[in-house]
Amino acid sequence: MTRTLALLLAAAALPAAPVLAAPTTAPSAQTFAPLFAAEVERAKRDVEASIRAGVNVPVPKDPGGGFTHEQHKRNYRTIFEGGQLYRLTGNVRYRDHVRDLLLAYADLYPKLGPHPAAANQAAGRLFWQSLNDSVFLVNAVQGYAQIRDALTPAERQRIDDGAIRPMAKFLSDGSPEVIGRIHNHATWACAGVGLAGYLLGDRDLVDKALLGLDKSGRTGFLRQLDLLFSPDGYYAEGPYYQRYALQPFVVFAAAIAANDPGRKIFDYRGGIVLKAVHTAIDVTHDGYFLPINDAMPDKSLRTEELYHAVAIAYAATKDPTFLSIADWQGHTVLTPEGQALAADLAAGKAKPWPFTSRLLSDGPDGKEGALVLLRDKPTPTGPLLVAKNTVQGMGHGHFDRLNWLYYDETGAVVTDYGAARFLNVEAKRGGRYLPENDSWASATIAHNTLVVDEQSHFTGDWKAGDKVPSHQLATGLDGPTRYSIGEVSGAYPDVRIRRALLLVDVDGLANPLILDILRGTGGGRHRYDLPLHFSGQIIDSDIAFDRKLAERPVLGKANGYQHLWVDGDGTKAGKARLTFMHGSRFYSYHMLPPAGAHFILTESGANDPEFNLRREPALIQRVDGAADATFVSLLEPHGKYDASAETVVASSARVANLEHRRDAAADLVLITLAGGRRLAIAVADDVTSTMKHSATIDGRAFTWAGPVGRFDLAKGDAK
Amino acid sequence: MTRTLALLLAAAALPAAPVLAAPTTAPSAQTFAPLFAAEVERAKRDVEASIRAGVNVPVPKDPGGGFTHEQHKRNYRTIFEGGQLYRLTGNVRYRDHVRDLLLAYADLYPKLGPHPAAANQAAGRLFWQSLNDSVFLVNAVQGYAQIRDALTPAERQRIDDGAIRPMAKFLSDGSPEVIGRIHNHATWACAGVGLAGYLLGDRDLVDKALLGLDKSGRTGFLRQLDLLFSPDGYYAEGPYYQRYALQPFVVFAAAIAANDPGRKIFDYRGGIVLKAVHTAIDVTHDGYFLPINDAMPDKSLRTEELYHAVAIAYAATKDPTFLSIADWQGHTVLTPEGQALAADLAAGKAKPWPFTSRLLSDGPDGKEGALVLLRDKPTPTGPLLVAKNTVQGMGHGHFDRLNWLYYDETGAVVTDYGAARFLNVEAKRGGRYLPENDSWASATIAHNTLVVDEQSHFTGDWKAGDKVPSHQLATGLDGPTRYSIGEVSGAYPDVRIRRALLLVDVDGLANPLILDILRGTGGGRHRYDLPLHFSGQIIDSDIAFDRKLAERPVLGKANGYQHLWVDGDGTKAGKARLTFMHGSRFYSYHMLPPAGAHFILTESGANDPEFNLRREPALIQRVDGAADATFVSLLEPHGKYDASAETVVASSARVANLEHRRDAAADLVLITLAGGRRLAIAVADDVTSTMKHSATIDGRAFTWAGPVGRFDLAKGDAK
Repeated sequence: MTRTLALLLAAAALPAAPVLAAPTTAPSAQTFAPLFAAEVERAKRDVEASIRAGVNVPVPKDPGGGFTHEQHKRNYRTIFEGGQLYRLTGNVRYRDHVRDLLLAYADLYPKLGPHPAAANQAAGRLFWQSLNDSVFLVNAVQGYAQIRDALTPAERQRIDDGAIRPMAKFLSDGSPEVIGRIHNHATWACAGVGLAGYLLGDRDLVDKALLGLDKSGRTGFLRQLDLLFSPDGYYAEGPYYQRYALQPFVVFAAAIAANDPGRKIFDYRGGIVLKAVHTAIDVTHDGYFLPINDAMPDKSLRTEELYHAVAIAYAATKDPTFLSIADWQGHTVLTPEGQALAADLAAGKAKPWPFTSRLLSDGPDGKEGALVLLRDKPTPTGPLLVAKNTVQGMGHGHFDRLNWLYYDETGAVVTDYGAARFLNVEAKRGGRYLPENDSWASATIAHNTLVVDEQSHFTGDWKAGDKVPSHQLATGLDGPTRYSIGEVSGAYPDVRIRRALLLVDVDGLANPLILDILRGTGGGRHRYDLPLHFSGQIIDSDIAFDRKLAERPVLGKANGYQHLWVDGDGTKAGKARLTFMHGSRFYSYHMLPPAGAHFILTESGANDPEFNLRREPALIQRVDGAADATFVSLLEPHGKYDASAETVVASSARVANLEHRRDAAADLVLITLAGGRRLAIAVADDVTSTMKHSATIDGRAFTWAGPVGRFDLAKGDAK
Repeated sequence: MTRTLALLLAAAALPAAPVLAAPTTAPSAQTFAPLFAAEVERAKRDVEASIRAGVNVPVPKDPGGGFTHEQHKRNYRTIFEGGQLYRLTGNVRYRDHVRDLLLAYADLYPKLGPHPAAANQAAGRLFWQSLNDSVFLVNAVQGYAQIRDALTPAERQRIDDGAIRPMAKFLSDGSPEVIGRIHNHATWACAGVGLAGYLLGDRDLVDKALLGLDKSGRTGFLRQLDLLFSPDGYYAEGPYYQRYALQPFVVFAAAIAANDPGRKIFDYRGGIVLKAVHTAIDVTHDGYFLPINDAMPDKSLRTEELYHAVAIAYAATKDPTFLSIADWQGHTVLTPEGQALAADLAAGKAKPWPFTSRLLSDGPDGKEGALVLLRDKPTPTGPLLVAKNTVQGMGHGHFDRLNWLYYDETGAVVTDYGAARFLNVEAKRGGRYLPENDSWASATIAHNTLVVDEQSHFTGDWKAGDKVPSHQLATGLDGPTRYSIGEVSGAYPDVRIRRALLLVDVDGLANPLILDILRGTGGGRHRYDLPLHFSGQIIDSDIAFDRKLAERPVLGKANGYQHLWVDGDGTKAGKARLTFMHGSRFYSYHMLPPAGAHFILTESGANDPEFNLRREPALIQRVDGAADATFVSLLEPHGKYDASAETVVASSARVANLEHRRDAAADLVLITLAGGRRLAIAVADDVTSTMKHSATIDGRAFTWAGPVGRFDLAKGDAK
């Protein structure tokens, strides 16, 4: 009895729910806080619909999006929800329906072999990939735990032995190639197996989940906690998979805390589980996960995984800022943790989540690069400059070392394509990753970083990329001049790339400026391409484009270039500018590429026989035959377009000039605003924080310490 | 005193505000309802900022979006708001600032000639087009009215004689070519002149505004009420200009009601002013105006014009459904009407706006076609089929007779490009209509209607189009089979076009089907093109497209065809299908074109040297060398994509087959659903509502009365 209940209780001890004392009506329904009450009502509708439809446990046949796939997903949700409703209401109809579903699985499951629609992923039995089988088990155990003690011994044994234990066996001993990995699929498997072990009182299953099949600790849940997150709780595959992986981590951690309190799992590795939740929330803009690597851009904090994570993290910490996230989510989970969270939210205890600039180190030891988030407001929708100086991120990683993104109140401005995939849409290759995910979405040219000789980083080989870390050389998280300096060697055989990205607040400008100094240092002569993928409508440019008005060629043959239509190719001496509008704001991109560069305007969507790609614009700065190349670019958000009031202000750029020069061992960038104000930014080659530097601008000497100096030339004083 | 106040009071008698008894604090601030209180605070911020900035009345120089343009707009808003704030608070700082602004205009205005940036519109003095001068006067008079009695006689005289009267003179006697038109520019001029007349006690100005410069009634405000709206309150230029025109109509009407109550202006022509407000709200989806004709698609009920219209209409009617619109708007006006509306909204008196199907007759007599709105839910975001069987709509009308649009909970699905224009964005030709507005946006091929021989309707000559009405032959506004049948003769010299559009509710389908039967009947042999402009990502198709994967040609040379990139050209025997996804829903477009047709996939954006066009997909059904052509098409919304829950249902179409045949004098369309259910829709040539028809389907005879019959073949009974 204690064991079956403990599964549902987080570390923060909550009172046990009376599963055996089963009232036939819901005595506490009136006392639920609104957020939780809505979940209860929603679950009742779902489960009642399932009861009306009757037990439907089909023989597995379809891939993602197909009927049997979706039906088994519906079933595990029904088992989870029905179990929770039985706990909350004591209504035996919920218990009986969950029981009947589980009995049907107990009849079906032992007869199943590998799923007939299995593709290149490890085959499941209920689903085309075993990952979904793990998700099934994680959910089913949580639901089953609520009714197990209220079944007859015979029913209990049939379900234990026909469904739960064989599922756990399949996902452990039966799938060593899955559960033995250091990978989110393995975490789901561990969580399913471990939860089953706690429920069945099967220590062997629990230990295999925690310590690997050989119980050595070289694989298993704890090892995953060691290796899959950086010390800052950043997940190597990126935010999309951080979200996905989070649910088994937090759900299994809560079960470990309840069943093996001596392990102090929430303190493990400096509290890595809670750090992972915190970081997952931080790697969002307007609630949506930054779509780096393989990622669907429509994933937000409003997902099942984060409902669990936020409820469990709040139960473990009582940190009131989690409540504001729950408020934005508008949902919580049906567990006691969700109930307690909803009550505190209703009691007005929420505090705003403190969005801030962060250096999220990457790699298990935190020394293999970083994801840097630079924010100048504590809001979910304010300006956010992302520097992706991370590790490869395994098979879901893109070839985009030193990539950057920019978000602000208008949404994603400098963009990442994310993954080429239509999740669960059967007509799109069963909802799997599409061929264009390799040929376009993960290619370097699809990102805002340097491409050498039209080839992707690591020649597009992620295993090669996995061996090469990035280097976060220096970071400044405080205003008014926040910065990230990163470097990578090895993305190309003979070119080292270094990039400084700065978020610069300027008095009198409503929006920060984003300064980008990128240098490729190479042997031999190369073609250097630096794309900017942006969202918005082009307003104008001072570049003389040769436009491809009536016949549109493609840019290249391979490595993503074959997917780019060419709209124009042009040149401009000195600083060049492209202005576009996105939402209610204008953006001017000022460029100072190496001498001889030209500018190519493109749109994605060429060589796309199945219409799998979105069509999005990019501007590429290109220089040919150079050994080294320094690209200095400045993104200037400005002005306001108000459709309601029919007013427009500052549709023209305020940045009048941009100059760059090398001075001793530093890059000096001079920004001249309309009206004549000048601002100088210096970025030293030596990134030591204590190193003193000096430079001469307009005949005046300036000094600064550390990698970045800033001078307001109107006043002549360093900040 | 009475006269100056009456301007601000709507027909529903509101208590006079104490403009002379001027308290120095705001005694009533605490009693404002939230909606109004927010407006007061916003206005205070605006006006205080203007006070801090000081009086800035620049010599006119810039076109739309430029500094002097925007500054004069800011100034009229400050005059309006400052006057209202003085009325509400009695704070003399507001009075003095409004006075100082008006005195500066009194100094400047008499010296001005035609605006230096005037283009092809009638030149204003403060603005590049006189239209903006009218808007200035409408606003300025309303603000000035609040402070006029609190000025010294000398100040009053300087403003009356230096600004208000000369502005009114310029817009009346000085601009006969503007005020004498039957056009929204003339309405704004009439309102400005008439309001000025009431304020100055100048009956001559009032009568010229009401009855035209010659006071004959052949032009002027009343004549505009006769001719610009149909009997249903539909404005000939379309919803975008209906919105724009509404403000002078309602503001001037409220002033007439207050100053000339004997005219019973709100009863004029069957209550046409209030009908126009009601219709303006009805021609929206999710609060956004349907962007037919020249229209910016980002215009919603959240605009100054509609704040005035809703407040004045509510004051005149106390219809509580206006309150729900005000609630959606989230704004109201600073006038007593706005104050009263906000109070009633706060008192919980709002009732939902009854969105419903409507036949909006067009033309002054209601006999020149119609805009038909077919809705199957009373909600602002529910399914909406629009049949545009209207008149040309003068110079802002597009060449899109019998065009259709479709909206639902995902937004605009079957789309209208709207206008090619970036309103007030200086870099886009001063914010004016762009060349692509003629070459693309208004062309027939840019719409979802029949193009004959690659030529626009009326060879793109709107004056020719203005002479030719459309015909609304029959309309059925009630479910489950709502329909519109329209016809036009004369869009092409020798081709008559008839189109039936039906919104069909089907038991068991979550969304209605949209059936389209279009027939071109011509002499000679023609190329017939029927485009569908849609929003969304293509999922798949059963058409064998020859794809233009690596080089993209344009479709044609002129009449909009030069702006279309070709993505593919293909054929399919029998019914053809294209499925796309928009938001969370799938849409399958099933087509049964004439024999020999092929299908062309296109995207807008070719031959666009200044990047003025959005890039949007279309599918064109094309048949060559036909005399007559019947296109039967069915749009089927289906399924659900849920990014949060990672579930997809019904991504495949439920419509398995579509058949069409002519039987006696009717079109019979058979729709077969997956599973075998069949539905027959019959549309008779004779649209008389009492006419009885019969047809034989599958050897069984059916009868129906009126133009449209419907049969469920599973049951064999007519509905």
